[in-house]
Amino acid sequence: MKKIQIGIVGGTGYTGVELLRLLANHPQAEVKVITSRSEAGMKVADMFPNLRGHYDLAFSEPNMDTLKACDVVFFATPHGVAMSLTPELIEAGVKVIDLAADFRINDLQVWESWYGMPHSCPDVMDEVVYGLPELHRERIKTAKVVANPGCYPTAVQLGFQPLLKAGLVDIDHLIADAKSGISGAGRGAKVDSLSAETSEGFKAYGINGHRHLPEIEQGLNEMAGSRVKLTFVPHLLPTIRGIEATLYGKLNQDWSQAQLQALFENHYAQEPFVDVMPAGSLPDTRMVKGSNMCRMAVYRPKGSDVVVVTSVIDNLVKGASGQAVQNMNLMFGLDETCGLTLVALMP
Amino acid sequence: MKKIQIGIVGGTGYTGVELLRLLANHPQAEVKVITSRSEAGMKVADMFPNLRGHYDLAFSEPNMDTLKACDVVFFATPHGVAMSLTPELIEAGVKVIDLAADFRINDLQVWESWYGMPHSCPDVMDEVVYGLPELHRERIKTAKVVANPGCYPTAVQLGFQPLLKAGLVDIDHLIADAKSGISGAGRGAKVDSLSAETSEGFKAYGINGHRHLPEIEQGLNEMAGSRVKLTFVPHLLPTIRGIEATLYGKLNQDWSQAQLQALFENHYAQEPFVDVMPAGSLPDTRMVKGSNMCRMAVYRPKGSDVVVVTSVIDNLVKGASGQAVQNMNLMFGLDETCGLTLVALMP
Amino acid sequence: MKKIQIGIVGGTGYTGVELLRLLANHPQAEVKVITSRSEAGMKVADMFPNLRGHYDLAFSEPNMDTLKACDVVFFATPHGVAMSLTPELIEAGVKVIDLAADFRINDLQVWESWYGMPHSCPDVMDEVVYGLPELHRERIKTAKVVANPGCYPTAVQLGFQPLLKAGLVDIDHLIADAKSGISGAGRGAKVDSLSAETSEGFKAYGINGHRHLPEIEQGLNEMAGSRVKLTFVPHLLPTIRGIEATLYGKLNQDWSQAQLQALFENHYAQEPFVDVMPAGSLPDTRMVKGSNMCRMAVYRPKGSDVVVVTSVIDNLVKGASGQAVQNMNLMFGLDETCGLTLVALMP
Amino acid sequence: MKKIQIGIVGGTGYTGVELLRLLANHPQAEVKVITSRSEAGMKVADMFPNLRGHYDLAFSEPNMDTLKACDVVFFATPHGVAMSLTPELIEAGVKVIDLAADFRINDLQVWESWYGMPHSCPDVMDEVVYGLPELHRERIKTAKVVANPGCYPTAVQLGFQPLLKAGLVDIDHLIADAKSGISGAGRGAKVDSLSAETSEGFKAYGINGHRHLPEIEQGLNEMAGSRVKLTFVPHLLPTIRGIEATLYGKLNQDWSQAQLQALFENHYAQEPFVDVMPAGSLPDTRMVKGSNMCRMAVYRPKGSDVVVVTSVIDNLVKGASGQAVQNMNLMFGLDETCGLTLVALMP
Repeated sequence: MKKIQIGIVGGTGYTGVELLRLLANHPQAEVKVITSRSEAGMKVADMFPNLRGHYDLAFSEPNMDTLKACDVVFFATPHGVAMSLTPELIEAGVKVIDLAADFRINDLQVWESWYGMPHSCPDVMDEVVYGLPELHRERIKTAKVVANPGCYPTAVQLGFQPLLKAGLVDIDHLIADAKSGISGAGRGAKVDSLSAETSEGFKAYGINGHRHLPEIEQGLNEMAGSRVKLTFVPHLLPTIRGIEATLYGKLNQDWSQAQLQALFENHYAQEPFVDVMPAGSLPDTRMVKGSNMCRMAVYRPKGSDVVVVTSVIDNLVKGASGQAVQNMNLMFGLDETCGLTLVALMP
Repeated sequence: MKKIQIGIVGGTGYTGVELLRLLANHPQAEVKVITSRSEAGMKVADMFPNLRGHYDLAFSEPNMDTLKACDVVFFATPHGVAMSLTPELIEAGVKVIDLAADFRINDLQVWESWYGMPHSCPDVMDEVVYGLPELHRERIKTAKVVANPGCYPTAVQLGFQPLLKAGLVDIDHLIADAKSGISGAGRGAKVDSLSAETSEGFKAYGINGHRHLPEIEQGLNEMAGSRVKLTFVPHLLPTIRGIEATLYGKLNQDWSQAQLQALFENHYAQEPFVDVMPAGSLPDTRMVKGSNMCRMAVYRPKGSDVVVVTSVIDNLVKGASGQAVQNMNLMFGLDETCGLTLVALMP
Repeated sequence: MKKIQIGIVGGTGYTGVELLRLLANHPQAEVKVITSRSEAGMKVADMFPNLRGHYDLAFSEPNMDTLKACDVVFFATPHGVAMSLTPELIEAGVKVIDLAADFRINDLQVWESWYGMPHSCPDVMDEVVYGLPELHRERIKTAKVVANPGCYPTAVQLGFQPLLKAGLVDIDHLIADAKSGISGAGRGAKVDSLSAETSEGFKAYGINGHRHLPEIEQGLNEMAGSRVKLTFVPHLLPTIRGIEATLYGKLNQDWSQAQLQALFENHYAQEPFVDVMPAGSLPDTRMVKGSNMCRMAVYRPKGSDVVVVTSVIDNLVKGASGQAVQNMNLMFGLDETCGLTLVALMP
Repeated sequence: MKKIQIGIVGGTGYTGVELLRLLANHPQAEVKVITSRSEAGMKVADMFPNLRGHYDLAFSEPNMDTLKACDVVFFATPHGVAMSLTPELIEAGVKVIDLAADFRINDLQVWESWYGMPHSCPDVMDEVVYGLPELHRERIKTAKVVANPGCYPTAVQLGFQPLLKAGLVDIDHLIADAKSGISGAGRGAKVDSLSAETSEGFKAYGINGHRHLPEIEQGLNEMAGSRVKLTFVPHLLPTIRGIEATLYGKLNQDWSQAQLQALFENHYAQEPFVDVMPAGSLPDTRMVKGSNMCRMAVYRPKGSDVVVVTSVIDNLVKGASGQAVQNMNLMFGLDETCGLTLVALMP
């Protein structure tokens, strides 16, 4: 079989280099072009020396003809870029996977209020599937455009899903206390992301409103079949990678720990990338570092009517580039795990 | 004035060396004796080289006569040691500050169920004051025995106090999502505390029940004047020091962000070691590293009936040894801030 | 082709889990047995959750019959274990790769003085090849026993090799200033390896003599064809993985930077796992994290007669388990890179 | 006694906040003015929240009249600023301590070639003393301008000084392998200093020439009374603070380990901020974190003619702001340790 011909728009950030890392060992994929206006001409392996020996490719100026010759184009760009090019690409029969947020929110008024720009291609939204395979697998397989979920949204939605679909928790009072490693802040030069500003520190941020809130709520609404109320507090973790989300819900039925454990295990029994750990386990972000797994555990603390879920992912893999490859596999009829069987790096 | 003569029982752990660090620059204190059965004869500065040049003192075998010659004895020992020596010490007129948990829980049945041993001196409990100065300042001044609060309990109680005293939140559904640096796990040789096991990782633990839960609930009950229900989930942070607690409460009155900010600022206006930061601030554990400050911020996320408090301390200072010195200052009529004006280390 | 049947003796440490990680994606290898006296019965994925979904295997009691049924046995044990079982294994036609030091030093008197025990199988030494492929590739292919090099020795020998083989430096005054991440200290519970004892710190150790010194000198002697004098100072780096070695030699010929660069590039032109980076590059341990690459750069500082080489590896991969798999590939006639094409994790 | 009135020019970087931290608890010092063109009007405690409660001061526009009203002005600015204002300040009788490099190199041709700008006040150089108290204590006491040493130069010069003054090592072949925490790179927004780019990494840099090389050589020349040849390789350490320098010299006399130990102990016996640790000690950067101490150890590895010194400082304290305060104390006739008795933070 001819390998899938891949284009990447904007590959100079962390999701870009992670895509390249994962695709380097993907047996059915071949990266044909990677664009960067600012770095055109530079070899990707000169910017990211971990790729030395794996890629001879250089960044090139964005060019629609070249991109249209691909089977699929990934956007690893700032918000707003993907929507400007996607109509022409899908017109040309190229599938699109956007790792940014351009297509994540169905309600474009909501999108515009959070992202502060008009949406340039409302028509395309009909072709878009929100690419959380554990929620939308079948629809992803035939989608022209996949909106690859955000990192926090992936960890939070996967953790709440079994509870919401079973109708077990009070949907007016959900809490997600989430923590992300610093790579989630991107590769931009910002004082706040300096090592001397973040190492040995920890803080909450975005309490008054984070762009991932409407994205998460949209997914939770779908799972619950009704409008949920979520308090979402992200925190900055002094690690490079990793997201942990601790989720709290008030049980509206008296399910035991064992019943909750069974619910979760059954819910995700067939999922290749969701691992419900045994009762009493403590998922650690290091158990998924570099891998596409989401690992989780569910608890009902003694004497309490609160259910607690802790869910971990690698923000750059299952929270971004790995999930994008998983979506590509689905869109092209490949084994969903193709190229994604890497074992997490531990220690 | 003659300096306060100080004894420290069990000074080979992190709270011990931290006490020594703080007392080295305390103008009214003099450490006369520090005991360690296992390390008797070793100079404290040989075990903790940061103390070289500050102490010539060596660890000695525990000896009641020597301890009784002190004005105050700090216990920086495993649980169970302080209660075995305290009756004799207070009999001899020596004040006691226990950094372990022996005297923290008033209900000894509860204590015994969590700590797995019988309490050896129930009579002494009448002399004990739980040493959170922001809650019990006046009683601490005349206490014979101070139960120095745990690290998580300090951060959580200080954060909830204004809300509970004002009766603003639903006390049946409080949530404390807390995170602690690894020094909280102590200086014992455990695989789980190895650097290769914790760096670049993050996880929840103790979800089914942590010893700090009854201690926190006892304090919150007192503040609320009624029995609260708390879900407390601690997490292990890949930093040496620092605790952050993100607290969630459901507002039972429609207070605005500005009103909540004013409530907190007024509540702590006179406190030397609680800093309510301006609205919109993001307290970071690095803002208190090495200092006795608790810094906090209060939020009401847009459109929500949930109040969120984020509170940070250095677990070894305000969460242990610094608070112990603060209590000592109160017990001996010194300025409460004496020896505790160190500025946090940043970066 | 039938997959290579693999036994691992002692797989509860970091080199053990790393072997399992690498072999999980090796297309020609199958781990049949992994032994641990202390953990017999426990599933490897219960001890190392990153392996969940990749292995169903459990640790078993060491059993010679089971091991003899393998094609190759890896020892990931404390020093002294491999030499006690190796004679019987090679007698049975099983190849042995020892990740410990039992077979690394040809001069057994030297070995015994550094490792403090008598060597139990001097006869076997004739069958042993020191497994640095870049030095002994052909001999490894037919070896019955491979002594897998130490982590520091790998980084230091590879860095010095081009200089010594070309006879360019004064061999009486070589200096290797080396730094290793904490995983090099193993998974044992030691106070010195606690996160609170090593994070945000850095120190030299072993200055008066480290066990890797005679191993390195043996290799350098072979390269130089004469007895070298090396000063080797290891340091503990506050990272999980990674070794960097900065090597200093006094040039005995006036070679330019460009000539030195060409020497190194030519020397390693055919090596799949040694990457001589372009002139002016700064190899960083993060450029090899999780991969089997050694990356290096060579410098001649302006106006100086000193040549400086900086060489980086992942101590658990090229410095241990990856190199062991590389050796296995050679011993079994596979492509040397089989199962070892993983891209380093960056960031 | 009236407190010393202090001005700080350019206090928005790490040496600035560190000066403020140290001066907050200095009993004889009062910061009157701190300038920053970019941040004028902002309170220092708003930029550096660790200072909340310690300073009410705000950054102000630079103003010569205000600065001239001070007793001493510290420059914590980019290179080139101090030399533009210093002539006018000393004319007005104000002492100057420059934490940048404007006055560190006596040979202005050398200075200009490394710093890439013309020196604007060669005349002032006669009034300048290089402020390493352990080398120039008496001259500092009467200096009008003190050139505060660089961080690497402090660690390296202090480590070599006893050997060079005793004439014990071959001065044609000195090696300094030095490592610095990331705060040494400053608070500027640079991709290379991002946490995701430096955590879990380690690399050499500046091998072909670092600005600290001529500064170090100048000091070593003075100590040796002759021109030395030094190879200096700095490395970036994934810690916030701390410098470790491992120094190598070839002994030209057969001194034993014990003799070397005695030499170092005697040499620094009277120094308040240099701690020669006992034979066999391993100075760790964490032993000086936040303190003004330099701790060091000297070794002669078995059978070798090489002497190895390992020297640690906190780059922001003894390597910058602490040494600046030490110099101020000397210049104003105060006890040299005034305000500098802080114990290092450990763990």
